[in-house]
Amino acid sequence: MVNQSMAALGNNRSTIRELFEYGNQRAAVVGRENVFDFSLGNPSVPAPDAVRQAILEEAAGNPVALHGYTSAQGAADVRTALADDLNRRFGTAYTGDSLYLTVGAAAALSCAFKALACPGDEFVVLSPYFPEYLMFIESGAGAKAVIVPPSVQDFQINFDALEQKMSAYTKAVVINSPNNPSGAVYSEQTIRRLAELLQSKEKQYGHPIYLISDEPYRELVFDGVQVPFVPNYYDNTIVCYSYSKSLSLPGERIGYVLVPPQSADSADVYAAVCGAGRALGYVCAPSLFQRVVARCTGLTGDLTVYKTNRDLLYDNLTAMGYRCVKPAGAFYLFPQTLEPDDRAFCERAKKYDLLVVPGADFGAPGHMRISYCVATGTIRRALPLFEKLAQEYR
Amino acid sequence: MVNQSMAALGNNRSTIRELFEYGNQRAAVVGRENVFDFSLGNPSVPAPDAVRQAILEEAAGNPVALHGYTSAQGAADVRTALADDLNRRFGTAYTGDSLYLTVGAAAALSCAFKALACPGDEFVVLSPYFPEYLMFIESGAGAKAVIVPPSVQDFQINFDALEQKMSAYTKAVVINSPNNPSGAVYSEQTIRRLAELLQSKEKQYGHPIYLISDEPYRELVFDGVQVPFVPNYYDNTIVCYSYSKSLSLPGERIGYVLVPPQSADSADVYAAVCGAGRALGYVCAPSLFQRVVARCTGLTGDLTVYKTNRDLLYDNLTAMGYRCVKPAGAFYLFPQTLEPDDRAFCERAKKYDLLVVPGADFGAPGHMRISYCVATGTIRRALPLFEKLAQEYR
Repeated sequence: MVNQSMAALGNNRSTIRELFEYGNQRAAVVGRENVFDFSLGNPSVPAPDAVRQAILEEAAGNPVALHGYTSAQGAADVRTALADDLNRRFGTAYTGDSLYLTVGAAAALSCAFKALACPGDEFVVLSPYFPEYLMFIESGAGAKAVIVPPSVQDFQINFDALEQKMSAYTKAVVINSPNNPSGAVYSEQTIRRLAELLQSKEKQYGHPIYLISDEPYRELVFDGVQVPFVPNYYDNTIVCYSYSKSLSLPGERIGYVLVPPQSADSADVYAAVCGAGRALGYVCAPSLFQRVVARCTGLTGDLTVYKTNRDLLYDNLTAMGYRCVKPAGAFYLFPQTLEPDDRAFCERAKKYDLLVVPGADFGAPGHMRISYCVATGTIRRALPLFEKLAQEYR
Repeated sequence: MVNQSMAALGNNRSTIRELFEYGNQRAAVVGRENVFDFSLGNPSVPAPDAVRQAILEEAAGNPVALHGYTSAQGAADVRTALADDLNRRFGTAYTGDSLYLTVGAAAALSCAFKALACPGDEFVVLSPYFPEYLMFIESGAGAKAVIVPPSVQDFQINFDALEQKMSAYTKAVVINSPNNPSGAVYSEQTIRRLAELLQSKEKQYGHPIYLISDEPYRELVFDGVQVPFVPNYYDNTIVCYSYSKSLSLPGERIGYVLVPPQSADSADVYAAVCGAGRALGYVCAPSLFQRVVARCTGLTGDLTVYKTNRDLLYDNLTAMGYRCVKPAGAFYLFPQTLEPDDRAFCERAKKYDLLVVPGADFGAPGHMRISYCVATGTIRRALPLFEKLAQEYR
């Protein structure tokens, strides 16, 4: 009597959530310190102290104003502050009218897909991808997700495959750089080549093709790597952003959709994002955290531990024989598994209480995702276990 | 190129939002104190001080835990606290496993509709209704909304019309008591009669019919009126709740879906609610406010001003000749307009800078909604203008 596809989605929790629950069960048996849960992308770095200061200062104000409804698209002064911050950093000239504040990146993506999706439309998703994209596109927006296989040697874009998968039905291409799960950051060269391909396909098919750039990890990069600001390379870019990772606020659900005025039919797209927000019940992102992020523009948590963790894991795992593209950002390592069947490998890893996620979940079988947003000590203690696991395959 | 129905939803802002913006424009011309904006349902009562205390105490804790992702359905201890509160107040025996925390009531309703909706299903909505129900049901969940005309003499249920509108396609009936926009509270007699009707229709059609009870105004009642707790009268009730009104936190977007274990296929329904949350991008309600509401169970703001405002408006407007069912709850008065065309009447009211919403927007033409969640002084100063408006019709 209920919607069976919704019940299936609810009953078949994502592998990540399953591992998280499994880890909790194991912790009760062997002790929390003996379970090495590398499954979840929950930042381990605390929010910068400016977040606490902002909460305290806002909480001292008038509660009716603070906790009241804002405009559906977010408070005007908050949107202006966030647009100013983008302009300062990326040389753009946005106003708050291009921003629609959302309940995190998931809401941003859901609203963007729902806003664009017309009957028959296809959204092209590049592997490896965040698995929930497929839910948002198919179950949420009722469109079709078309999956492009990965470029496993560098986790940049597999352009030949992308070009083959595009068609007159392509409404948008979805990218995520810095990438979950590979940690790859698309180079300026990659973004330029992508822009050229999309422009030529727009000409070929005679309609705009949007580039939905999902960027919650934009600020999490190492070794001075630059993340190209995608709208500066391709006009028809729609940015979905969340403060989950940069400010370590994943539970607070605060982000935005940016519809640049340069993009095709931008007024219509923005209106449709607002309409999708209404249809999905999303109007008005959480009001206190709207104000908090406006007060914290340009800040991040102290992200140095992520680099420490990346280096420790990457250097040791590659020395043990694991093969891996060195990630330049985010907080994930995505090595090849030591047998082709990544699910079997990840099951075997559980024997050592190492919880890692099969790459097949992200459209890249033969890999495993290791979330290293954990205490560095946890990684140190896990390394001998990764070594034991590797020994099984020698 | 965008989804035209989404763009239309975004471009055609609700009448309420239009009035709100119009009021801001008028305020710039004639001064804020001379605009009498009775359009929005934004609580005027501050959140109880316990909310501020809870925020301060939580903010003093570990930010990684405080702002991290919770379980998709909400933190287990928070759900337990909310279930315990319901049990204490309504004599039930729920556990946290029956609750799914949401980003406000809009998300709760969206997830409930999406969870239940199968192809061909109809959701029966009783006038007068919150207009966004129709968006959530049709644009969000892709089902059909069937509208039942109001019982204008008392704003209880028009049972004859309801019975006529039900069919084998009826998946659920949606109620909202205390009601927005009429302020009516369904009596115990009404709820019993509704339960009997639904039970007989379940037998007739051979499948469960859910009762979706949208209750954000549950605690806002006057003169000792009791609000029957609907699941205690009809097993197949699904409750959608928000703390927007009781704790004056509308902007913070925190509420829940309750799927009582007594309801038909409750495990499947709960799973489908979880699945709908995934599909719509809703997992994990805002984490700080999960903790805040758990700390504030059983509390409300000081709601006495709403009774003062109701009495002042009701007594004076009826003395002027406006005809009105006396509301027993919420913070709306829903008088008949002084001409049958409520839109024309509300336009005429603008001449006096009285902003009220046409009843047609709520499925009850010939009425106007006056939101009296404003300062009492605003009502006092508006009364002579309501009198002048009435004089035009004498």
